[in-house]
Amino acid sequence: MNEDERAIRELVDRWQNATRAGDVATVLDLMTDDAIFMVPGRPPFGKEAFKNASQQMKDVRIEGTNEIQEIHVLGDWAYLRNHIDITVTPPGADSVRRSGYTLTILSKGSDGRWRLTRDANLLTTQK
Amino acid sequence: MNEDERAIRELVDRWQNATRAGDVATVLDLMTDDAIFMVPGRPPFGKEAFKNASQQMKDVRIEGTNEIQEIHVLGDWAYLRNHIDITVTPPGADSVRRSGYTLTILSKGSDGRWRLTRDANLLTTQK
Repeated sequence: MNEDERAIRELVDRWQNATRAGDVATVLDLMTDDAIFMVPGRPPFGKEAFKNASQQMKDVRIEGTNEIQEIHVLGDWAYLRNHIDITVTPPGADSVRRSGYTLTILSKGSDGRWRLTRDANLLTTQK
Repeated sequence: MNEDERAIRELVDRWQNATRAGDVATVLDLMTDDAIFMVPGRPPFGKEAFKNASQQMKDVRIEGTNEIQEIHVLGDWAYLRNHIDITVTPPGADSVRRSGYTLTILSKGSDGRWRLTRDANLLTTQK
């Protein structure tokens, strides 16, 4: 495993840990300012909308695991395929389990840090 | 628009026209042998599964339009965001309209041709 791949795996871990901790600022720091998120059933949205949605979910407990399927580094760009399995528990409500795959594009900034820049999230609710 | 971007737009057009014509061989020629397709609710699948599914749908009429949102060329790789709106009509059955966004990764082969290599398809059925 080379240095870039290791850095990308660390990014995925930090993203997951910060999400679990409700640490929105750290998650926002792991994406580019022009990041675009894609989920089924609604138009793509950017960092500001991601931030607003995350802040509204700050009392929601999110636990999960992920299993990276593929990392392909192309110079200062990379793509990543991941499988994510999360359980989302709003305060006083039942848990919802969501799982599925993601396709993510990352870029390496002039500071040498990898960040998420495009993300297609295909998770579905598990009955 | 540079040559690579033009070639990628042509690839999208050829894909759509071949799909409409039920020309599976042409569509298969527009992807790499290791292409991976991602849709919500099932594991990623490859070229062989794509071929089988397409052959089973050869009597299905597929009409549609697409509107490219973004093409970003990174040397011999590129990513593409597209919006697709299709109407699928099986023989003797009602039409189903599906629309949504895609995130696609393309690669430029040693023959200079662009091909699709990873595709996340977030289309949903429109009621």
